[in-house]
Amino acid sequence: MISTQTMNTFKTIVGEENVITSSAGRLVYSYDATPNFQSMPDAVIAPRNTEEVSQIVTVCREQKIPIVPRGSGTNLAAGTVPSEGGIVLLFKHMNHILEIDEENLTVTVQPGVVTLDMIKAVEQKGLFYPPDPSSMKISTIGGNINENSGGLRGLKYGVTRDYVMALQAVLPNGDIIRTGGKLAKDVAGYDLTRLLVGSEGTLAIITEATLKLIPMPETKQTMLALYNSMDAAAKSVSEIIAAKIIPATLEFLDRPTLIAVEDFAQIGLPTDVEAVLLIEQDGPPEIVARDMEKMAEICTREQAVSVQIAATEAEALALTTARRAALSALARLKPTTILEDATVPRSEIVNMVKAINEIAEKHNVRIATFGHAGDGNLHPTCPTDARDHDEMERVEAAFADIFSKAIELGGTITGEHGVGMMKAPYLEWKMGPEGIAIMKAIKHSFDPDNIMNPGKMFAKETRKRVVVTQ
Amino acid sequence: MISTQTMNTFKTIVGEENVITSSAGRLVYSYDATPNFQSMPDAVIAPRNTEEVSQIVTVCREQKIPIVPRGSGTNLAAGTVPSEGGIVLLFKHMNHILEIDEENLTVTVQPGVVTLDMIKAVEQKGLFYPPDPSSMKISTIGGNINENSGGLRGLKYGVTRDYVMALQAVLPNGDIIRTGGKLAKDVAGYDLTRLLVGSEGTLAIITEATLKLIPMPETKQTMLALYNSMDAAAKSVSEIIAAKIIPATLEFLDRPTLIAVEDFAQIGLPTDVEAVLLIEQDGPPEIVARDMEKMAEICTREQAVSVQIAATEAEALALTTARRAALSALARLKPTTILEDATVPRSEIVNMVKAINEIAEKHNVRIATFGHAGDGNLHPTCPTDARDHDEMERVEAAFADIFSKAIELGGTITGEHGVGMMKAPYLEWKMGPEGIAIMKAIKHSFDPDNIMNPGKMFAKETRKRVVVTQ
Repeated sequence: MISTQTMNTFKTIVGEENVITSSAGRLVYSYDATPNFQSMPDAVIAPRNTEEVSQIVTVCREQKIPIVPRGSGTNLAAGTVPSEGGIVLLFKHMNHILEIDEENLTVTVQPGVVTLDMIKAVEQKGLFYPPDPSSMKISTIGGNINENSGGLRGLKYGVTRDYVMALQAVLPNGDIIRTGGKLAKDVAGYDLTRLLVGSEGTLAIITEATLKLIPMPETKQTMLALYNSMDAAAKSVSEIIAAKIIPATLEFLDRPTLIAVEDFAQIGLPTDVEAVLLIEQDGPPEIVARDMEKMAEICTREQAVSVQIAATEAEALALTTARRAALSALARLKPTTILEDATVPRSEIVNMVKAINEIAEKHNVRIATFGHAGDGNLHPTCPTDARDHDEMERVEAAFADIFSKAIELGGTITGEHGVGMMKAPYLEWKMGPEGIAIMKAIKHSFDPDNIMNPGKMFAKETRKRVVVTQ
Repeated sequence: MISTQTMNTFKTIVGEENVITSSAGRLVYSYDATPNFQSMPDAVIAPRNTEEVSQIVTVCREQKIPIVPRGSGTNLAAGTVPSEGGIVLLFKHMNHILEIDEENLTVTVQPGVVTLDMIKAVEQKGLFYPPDPSSMKISTIGGNINENSGGLRGLKYGVTRDYVMALQAVLPNGDIIRTGGKLAKDVAGYDLTRLLVGSEGTLAIITEATLKLIPMPETKQTMLALYNSMDAAAKSVSEIIAAKIIPATLEFLDRPTLIAVEDFAQIGLPTDVEAVLLIEQDGPPEIVARDMEKMAEICTREQAVSVQIAATEAEALALTTARRAALSALARLKPTTILEDATVPRSEIVNMVKAINEIAEKHNVRIATFGHAGDGNLHPTCPTDARDHDEMERVEAAFADIFSKAIELGGTITGEHGVGMMKAPYLEWKMGPEGIAIMKAIKHSFDPDNIMNPGKMFAKETRKRVVVTQ
């Protein structure tokens, strides 16, 4: 509980209209996009500038009040649930694009800018910001940075981390720091910029970011390849890379996902094949044409039953929309949808997909899988019902097996969603007790009072790992 | 001093032949490539594997013995000088390429592998490792990772950090951790991989690394453009970027550098122009041809007095060799050569070069400047004589002014060389006291006993900053 006096201090800092304390107002921020996690904050505060953030943090530090910075709450790992109460920090006022620097190819933004708004703004200058998380229509850049968001273009272009050049951040002691710069090269001390990227709000509050841009690719083409076996689809992926082609997008959908998507989007996708690859290449027209032709050849040689290059932009858009609709489509099947993002080296995709299907069968749960075949980032998705406790236990057991298998194959428990509360019990499986110990030491060095998004990343108890045998 | 008993423990761990204690043997490791810094280690130890590194570290921790991990000592910031004695750790036995994974496009190496050896090995598979520090013929990958080395291809391809996917490292408490994986996406906890990259051996000892590779560009072309003014050269750089071309290399040399290089290499470079741009583009032949033509047009339009595209590979090699010879050429002029790497946003290069020349005049020192125009990473270089104390004081004052000016222009004190001992007194100018405080907290969280490369990165005293006025 926050005292009336402290609440008044907050109101003095940000203005009364920017402190929400009503039950209805707080309820809205008691959950994020993750099913089954909810907890009420004591207040919701919307600072107007970095100085106000610093003042709020200083008060919270003195009073040991938890702070949960929040973008649009599209988080899928319960990373923005105020699990220990305290305040939720909103960035609705700090939502400006401060500068697009065409000479240095950078954009400087406040954390509350919506990702797609920024992408559109830089595209108007012929510039390109590649990270494209599926939530980009509503997610904020601040959220993307805190989660190190990925997207469909990870293989060729990398993830959010690869585009953050400089940050302004408020530390848990109220200090305001600036890291990096508009500099392709900067080795002045530890890489605080990239330590903060993906730190899930547990180390500092990001109040400004300068992001790297690249020239907009001149053109883009889209292709769909259908397969009667997952093996053939995966072999195509390997052969494309072996041919030294790095496509902009290399996505795959399994049959259950395909059926759900077609049912939802009605765009004439076939539902009688086992796997689909959605492939995009961008760049200069002659190179795109050459790569598309080669990739079509490879897919055909590797037993694709159909290979179709989109003839028009509208057709291409329909295909990519189909992929982007996968989660929404699967979410219609049952009241609760659990979407995971176990990730493996690209060479292990077939093994991982097979294991996922076997694990689903073993635990008697339904799992559809789609994801980024190019970078091994899979999204096994379980349509279920949170009210069915027996099924939920089986779902959880299945995902534990999936995480274990991913690690066994050289992978990780989360490729782009983050650890949050949901995967905290599994982090030790990936990092070992030594890795957890040093991460906790880093956390303590920033935030000795544990006020910054407490309860995330580090679990009170690590789950016991049962090695998967099939 | 290390006790005989402890020295015997080291000998038991690594074998007697891998512990050097003779004066002559230790002398070799008392300095690195940085002028004017020297300090004797108590012993030089060459472990054979990670387990031995862990055992050595455990002994050092118990006895509070400083450890300085060292590659080939090509460091230019006194980062590998054993300034507080203790042991120098050599990786001459841990110098194997463990795996080239053509399916996942990775190479896994031990830290002692020579950079160029690894580059050649992956090139044989048609793969490409872009970071190309000037020292790559003798530098090691371990050194590159600890320093986050850059090179000539930073603008288009990034630096070492952008290619490190996974590490094995020994922490100061002897724990062995693994970070990352063969994964384009991994957000399981804090980004320890990138925190260790560029940490200059002050946090952990890297014992294995998995690096990202990309397909080898199909072709490459090289061009030289000569200018009668620095402004015109810089304007060409801006216009090339404005035309949405990102060349693989975009280097510049000023007239003093040019004279020194031609005197050294005798390859027919003109010495009567004020600035030279060395431009390379790589990629598919048709795109390289198109980009080269456009860039030649831009340079000509921007008043280049001569634009010459290398007609043969031998000619191209001569041009790039000229640029790579800059430091060696300048080093012949006087007994001591001080090479710095102040870095500014690309848009500020003209201002920075002008400021460097004014600062040189003000302090009556000779400074030649060359560097990476594409990424704003400049190498103001001062041929001097360490025995001339009066001149050395003026040189130091000039470089302090240069660092200050770089920061004023939104830049940094070091783009690719690192902080080490040499730039430690200036780090606070870039990071502020708040930034230094959090970096020190991170250091303490890893290494509470300060045994890992002590005396580097953090200065006992920060230099007083005098704002440059011209």
